[in-house]
Amino acid sequence: MDSEPATDWTLDPQLEHDTIFVCDLPLCQVRLMNDANYPWLLLVPRRAKASEITDLSEADQAQLMREVAQSVRALKSETVCLKINVAAIGNVVAQLHVHVVARFRNDPAWPKPVWGHLPARAYEDTARQNLVAAMRTRLTIAPA
Amino acid sequence: MDSEPATDWTLDPQLEHDTIFVCDLPLCQVRLMNDANYPWLLLVPRRAKASEITDLSEADQAQLMREVAQSVRALKSETVCLKINVAAIGNVVAQLHVHVVARFRNDPAWPKPVWGHLPARAYEDTARQNLVAAMRTRLTIAPA
Repeated sequence: MDSEPATDWTLDPQLEHDTIFVCDLPLCQVRLMNDANYPWLLLVPRRAKASEITDLSEADQAQLMREVAQSVRALKSETVCLKINVAAIGNVVAQLHVHVVARFRNDPAWPKPVWGHLPARAYEDTARQNLVAAMRTRLTIAPA
Repeated sequence: MDSEPATDWTLDPQLEHDTIFVCDLPLCQVRLMNDANYPWLLLVPRRAKASEITDLSEADQAQLMREVAQSVRALKSETVCLKINVAAIGNVVAQLHVHVVARFRNDPAWPKPVWGHLPARAYEDTARQNLVAAMRTRLTIAPA
C-alpha cells in the first residue's frame, strides 16, 4: 500500500490547527475535526503535493476508497448517525483531504452541508479524548 | 463490472428533474446538473437502494472511484477549472449520487461549496447541448 515515498509529506498547518490526530492508516492520516457540532473525520493521504484525487496513483485512489469506506463504517457504528457525508473540496486548503461527517436530523446544519454553516465549537477534553479513543479502536483494532 | 443486477434501479425523480443525461459508464449514470453557475456532473451508481458508499459491494466501490477519477479528468480537461469538488452528501435525496463540480476563482460561490449557495440557473439550449456533447465525448470516446 505504501508504494510511493511519503517522506516529504507534511500535514498542512491549517488542517493541523483544526484537527486532532486519530491514527495512521496505510495511505491516510485520520484526524478528528475539533468541532463538537458534528462527529467529523478528516482523511489526509500522506502524499506530497496531492490536491485532486487524480493526483494520486491508481493504486492510491483504490486505497483511498477502501479507507473512506472503512471510516464511514467506523463513524456510523460509533455514532449511530442518520447519514454520512463524504467530500473532497479543497478550495481553501489545497492539500488533498477527505471529509467524513456523521449527520443527524437534529444537528445544527441539517439537512444542509456542514461547510461554512457554523463556527467550529471545540470539544471538551473528556468528550474529545473519548471520541478519539473510540475511533482509533474501531479503525485500527477492528478495521473491517 | 456489472456483477450485480441493475434491473430494479430507477433514477430518483428529483435527480432526474435537476439534471440532463450524459452517458452510462459501467457502474454510474453520468448526468449534468442543469445549473449554468458551475459545470457540474452527477454520478449515480445504477444500484437499487444504495444510499451510502458502503451500501455498494467492494468491487462497485472500486469502480465508483475509477469513474469519479475519469469524470474529474474529463471535467477538468473540458473546463480548465481551478479545482474540482467531489462529494457524496445525500441528506435530501437518499439515492447515492456523487457530485463532481468544476470550480473557478470567479464563480458565484467561490471559495465556498456550491450546495445551497444559489438557486440553479438553467442553461440556454445551445450551451447545454454543447457541454453535454463534449462531456459525452470525453467520457466515452477517450475514457483514459
